[in-house]
Amino acid sequence: MSDAPVRSRRRGGGGAARRAERTAVSVETAKYIERNVPNYEVLTEDALDVIEANAETVLAEIGVNFVENPAALQRWKDAGAEVDGERVRIPRGLAKKLCATAPSEYVQHARNPDRNVVVGGKNLVLAPVYGPPFVRDIAGGRRYATMADFEKFVKLGYMSKWLHHSGGTVCEPTDVAVNKRHLDMLLAHMVYSDKPFMGSVTEPSRAQDSVEMCEILFGEDFVQDNTVMTSLININSPLTFDGIMMGAMEVFARNNQASIISPFIVGGAMAPVSVAGTLTQVLAEVMAGVAYSQLVRPGAPVVFGTFVTSIDMNSGAPTFGTPEAAHITYGAGQLARRLGLPYRSAGSFCGSKLPDAQAAYETANSLQMGLLSGVNFMLHACGWLEGGLVASFEKFVMDADQLGTLHHFAKGIDLDENGQAMDAIEEVGPGGHYLGCAHTQANFKSAFWRSDLLDYKPFETWDEEGARDTQTLAAARVEKLLADYRQPALDPQIESRLRAYVAEKKASMPDAFT
Amino acid sequence: MSDAPVRSRRRGGGGAARRAERTAVSVETAKYIERNVPNYEVLTEDALDVIEANAETVLAEIGVNFVENPAALQRWKDAGAEVDGERVRIPRGLAKKLCATAPSEYVQHARNPDRNVVVGGKNLVLAPVYGPPFVRDIAGGRRYATMADFEKFVKLGYMSKWLHHSGGTVCEPTDVAVNKRHLDMLLAHMVYSDKPFMGSVTEPSRAQDSVEMCEILFGEDFVQDNTVMTSLININSPLTFDGIMMGAMEVFARNNQASIISPFIVGGAMAPVSVAGTLTQVLAEVMAGVAYSQLVRPGAPVVFGTFVTSIDMNSGAPTFGTPEAAHITYGAGQLARRLGLPYRSAGSFCGSKLPDAQAAYETANSLQMGLLSGVNFMLHACGWLEGGLVASFEKFVMDADQLGTLHHFAKGIDLDENGQAMDAIEEVGPGGHYLGCAHTQANFKSAFWRSDLLDYKPFETWDEEGARDTQTLAAARVEKLLADYRQPALDPQIESRLRAYVAEKKASMPDAFT
Repeated sequence: MSDAPVRSRRRGGGGAARRAERTAVSVETAKYIERNVPNYEVLTEDALDVIEANAETVLAEIGVNFVENPAALQRWKDAGAEVDGERVRIPRGLAKKLCATAPSEYVQHARNPDRNVVVGGKNLVLAPVYGPPFVRDIAGGRRYATMADFEKFVKLGYMSKWLHHSGGTVCEPTDVAVNKRHLDMLLAHMVYSDKPFMGSVTEPSRAQDSVEMCEILFGEDFVQDNTVMTSLININSPLTFDGIMMGAMEVFARNNQASIISPFIVGGAMAPVSVAGTLTQVLAEVMAGVAYSQLVRPGAPVVFGTFVTSIDMNSGAPTFGTPEAAHITYGAGQLARRLGLPYRSAGSFCGSKLPDAQAAYETANSLQMGLLSGVNFMLHACGWLEGGLVASFEKFVMDADQLGTLHHFAKGIDLDENGQAMDAIEEVGPGGHYLGCAHTQANFKSAFWRSDLLDYKPFETWDEEGARDTQTLAAARVEKLLADYRQPALDPQIESRLRAYVAEKKASMPDAFT
Repeated sequence: MSDAPVRSRRRGGGGAARRAERTAVSVETAKYIERNVPNYEVLTEDALDVIEANAETVLAEIGVNFVENPAALQRWKDAGAEVDGERVRIPRGLAKKLCATAPSEYVQHARNPDRNVVVGGKNLVLAPVYGPPFVRDIAGGRRYATMADFEKFVKLGYMSKWLHHSGGTVCEPTDVAVNKRHLDMLLAHMVYSDKPFMGSVTEPSRAQDSVEMCEILFGEDFVQDNTVMTSLININSPLTFDGIMMGAMEVFARNNQASIISPFIVGGAMAPVSVAGTLTQVLAEVMAGVAYSQLVRPGAPVVFGTFVTSIDMNSGAPTFGTPEAAHITYGAGQLARRLGLPYRSAGSFCGSKLPDAQAAYETANSLQMGLLSGVNFMLHACGWLEGGLVASFEKFVMDADQLGTLHHFAKGIDLDENGQAMDAIEEVGPGGHYLGCAHTQANFKSAFWRSDLLDYKPFETWDEEGARDTQTLAAARVEKLLADYRQPALDPQIESRLRAYVAEKKASMPDAFT
């Protein structure tokens, strides 16, 4: 039972694609979330004013470092900033003024246009976990991730109804050379899914490869005129923009591709232990990064990113799903809206080693706050385990199922005549029951969200069927989704050009593992 | 590490109590939550107006049934309602007018005055699970609850830092006769804990016994002048007030004791499948119940209760932690505030059979929404499993630990000079780190909430220690808390009078199991 709008699959192009499509299985993907509920605003306007003024002070008096990037320093100098070595001090008001040319929302195109997403406004786009070097499943335990694992995650993402985006480095394929794995990863997203995806950021040249592969997939003109990638550019907090990440961002901006400009902060280590102090630094960092993107190309799409978590001061371990992380996520959402920028934060965060109750408490806290804080792009929305070191197959489908609760909550409360249900209350009356009444019969199919995974059976049935816990149910679902998976149709000419590009690039250089 | 205010233990009275106290272990309990964050408001004022108008229509045109309760019908007639058989139709405006004499907040006294709670306003009081006939633990599995289990839960509640209230029927002691178990349950709360507790509601005579036992514990005059119990009066939804529950409520109201007037609704069965329809019925039911309490005794403390969950239309099973339940909980909070009444809702709700990831997702969704919806009294805040059929020892301590996140979130964001941390940002600067800076050193102890239960260890340590999941960690914590438990000091004279009262009452009637 689901009321998600069915978004049918489309061809990549050509007659062969049409033939392929006729034999493919139809896969249902919900439209990105369009919120019909308010955001939660934890800070007053006065508090936001204080934080904004402090962020301007940080930029003007302390400044930020753009390291190993002389062209960036020149751009800042030309724009009116004070440059001292690699330190850039940005006069009050300048960063904010530069940010104004960034769009408040943008379309990211998918090769299946039914799966395009609009990032910004009241929308929420959900993308899977990014970056884990390890994977875990119930059968094999924890191990280094491989390209085979990567492809399985892309397929699971494609099969996941509530996931709008295929993501990027869903796990690090450690069996492929570091200087070549981006090619295999991009190819997997392009071929095994038709949802939108992310580009490579680990070298400017790999960002360029991402653009070139998109030109094959979408056509050269299309890429220059439209955004087809949203990529993750981390700031080296505190207040440092390294040349590699900025180099990748420059490639994307020049090609009209979107970057998430994202402080990466474990509170108390890369930012102050206080929430207001962290928000100040986050705002200063994002303003500097977004302003810089607009110096590269005014109008380039960018996202106000915030990855922030707390720390266990006993062990130094990052902690997740905590109230302080929630404060920051809510507060940063307000700051992003005041800047008029799309907002990226939250995810299926947890510190647990297993997809157990700890993982789920921490994850649910993080997902719900992501919805209410007005996040527009939620990376890591499913599959995150062990502080992001591990991509878990079971947790991927567990979290992906929970994302349905965000869709249904965001629909808001229907107050039309049918929603008011006065006829039903009158029909049933005191002491009656609603199961058989006309209003229930007319509405029950779409009235309540229903998990596709969790256990709703009577105790006796559940017990007879093996008393399975959530992880065990999830392992069965992973198997079923992978068994049901069929590759979405793609013009075979495009696929072979992509494969040729990857083969040629890989042959052009020796393997490097750093 | 905790920054919960330590609330020291106090004597029940007399020299013997003082001697007992000197040998007792000090147990830390956090003060009830005083929110310094806004509530989340999902409905507009216009929508609330529509629902209020509809609820008045329900009361005036459909009416409610007060069954097997001629005195209630007479009271309603005298107040101006139209009574037809057991049906009471309440003219527009009358119920609301009667509700106005109910206090917007009240103090519930504990025998240890440091543990008094204020129910209402911006506060949140947390109480454990109520009503399960079964218990579950990792060693013994699922089984019928006994009085020995009940006492263990009361002790765990006493030892739980974030729990402010000892609750009521923390599980049903099925090994004690139905007509006598309330005596043993009350005695356990009074003797094994010094936190506030709930009275018996299963017969008016048992409510009267609850009052009489409180008169022994607190003194007769004290009970008449002060509220020492908050008890749960369920409405037999839709729109029906049964004589037993109302009889118990009448006893409490006459004795100035608080009642939670609470619709008990599985959506689609006892209320319409739509959110707005359910809110309309909830409001009509609560207004009628609260109005009736004020007919019994104007000024009697009452709470706007809402127990609402959704239903799996495939199996008929109630479902928990769902977006529709969240809509209703948020909306009902807004309605309660407009009526000026304290609000009871939310809890550690889940449908799972085990304290696994499903249980934790559903529970976290419910707990977080409870905080943001402005709940003042949260029954079932820990220990709930399997749709409320089971009280779980492990889940009790798991949930009780998570309640710490609500305390810390509710503190809000500190914006004083220390909170702004500008000195720290300047001291550390671009590329530095905050672990050693003065601001971090001064603040790290209270900066971040830290679980007392969850795993924050490095993977290798965790693996060497047995790769324990949350349930296994929780089982160890249950054992430790029970081993550390020491009975809070109570005047031995009072204790023996309570025991004599219970013995006499039990001897006065044969066992009955219905």
